[in-house]
Amino acid sequence: MGDLKKQENRIVPEPALRRMPCYLSYLKLARKAGQKVISSTNIARDMGIDPTQVTKDLSYTSIVGKTRVGYEVDLLIEVLEEFLGFKVLDEAFLFGAGSLGIALLHDLGLRQYGLKITAAFDINPQVVGKEIEGVKIYHVNEYARMQDSGIRIGILTVPLDCAQKTAELMVNGGIKAIWNFTPVVIKLPNEIVVQNTSLYAHLAVMFNRLHSNDAELK
Amino acid sequence: MGDLKKQENRIVPEPALRRMPCYLSYLKLARKAGQKVISSTNIARDMGIDPTQVTKDLSYTSIVGKTRVGYEVDLLIEVLEEFLGFKVLDEAFLFGAGSLGIALLHDLGLRQYGLKITAAFDINPQVVGKEIEGVKIYHVNEYARMQDSGIRIGILTVPLDCAQKTAELMVNGGIKAIWNFTPVVIKLPNEIVVQNTSLYAHLAVMFNRLHSNDAELK
Repeated sequence: MGDLKKQENRIVPEPALRRMPCYLSYLKLARKAGQKVISSTNIARDMGIDPTQVTKDLSYTSIVGKTRVGYEVDLLIEVLEEFLGFKVLDEAFLFGAGSLGIALLHDLGLRQYGLKITAAFDINPQVVGKEIEGVKIYHVNEYARMQDSGIRIGILTVPLDCAQKTAELMVNGGIKAIWNFTPVVIKLPNEIVVQNTSLYAHLAVMFNRLHSNDAELK
Repeated sequence: MGDLKKQENRIVPEPALRRMPCYLSYLKLARKAGQKVISSTNIARDMGIDPTQVTKDLSYTSIVGKTRVGYEVDLLIEVLEEFLGFKVLDEAFLFGAGSLGIALLHDLGLRQYGLKITAAFDINPQVVGKEIEGVKIYHVNEYARMQDSGIRIGILTVPLDCAQKTAELMVNGGIKAIWNFTPVVIKLPNEIVVQNTSLYAHLAVMFNRLHSNDAELK
């Protein structure tokens, strides 16, 4: 059940990619409930998505469901985890050990999803030299001598006014992908991957929706 | 410079809302650089967005730029912070003091953006009773007697298999908006605001883009 086809290397649209961890968690819950096989119709119904969307999203991975039967749950979980890069542990450097940076050092859950922070950098003498969850915080000047580490992923959690110049420093040091938690629009060469995740932008959306609801009730 | 018009209560599209904290951080940097007035054309150019998009996004707030002059930077910052709900401190409960939940307790930056966690709940005896950054972790059973606190925002950071039932418990206790950090698609009555923020989904997007780049270089 569920054939594997050769995986083409094509750009997967971001909305599809973002839904994949949701499929994954849905499937893990289904497996826990004892389900062995699942149809895209059922996934779609339970997740409130269009069934053709589910089939299309999953077609980006190497799995093919069987007509009238569906996907094998175990196999689909495996394929999705592999596809999403969660099965390989990538190492990353963290730039900015302020409040959000330190928070991320505490989130060991990232390791389960394939990301391990191996060193952090800051300029604040109050944090430089400290160790959080086994990760040492260095002065950013020390980054220069750690550039041959082969680490290609950097997490950016510095204050607004250092964001652009820190991003450039990271790229000069060999970073190829930046997970940008600042709300600053970073300008870098096109070949550098920048993933923007502004928690505060999501917070703004939530506040707005809540206050709109309040206004409707008035 | 920059007239205020009466603000209508209309639903602001999510992409526009998500861009607003980016405008805000851009403006704060501009202010720091000594700029007093700024045109939508300049904002658009520096942020790599279409100028009409900038004007439209900002039109959702109460500010109106002056033709051929632009927006007053100080005023626009004030208006945006107010509009985004960052100037009022909303209190929230955190459900799930695992690794990500504890990380969020460490992120005091949330307070600057209008969110203060006042209590956390879990079932794990190893964390119940502890205090992190001044926030006490209670057993979730104690939530029942804290329901008249008037707190309407809940942060959901529990394991996958508790997500749906914890969300229901929150709503039964009076929570009106849930900031859902789990990748689970939560089903709740329509009037409840659910803001999904899956860090791991963003991580998946970053991994995919990085690996696509690798493949192109081969």
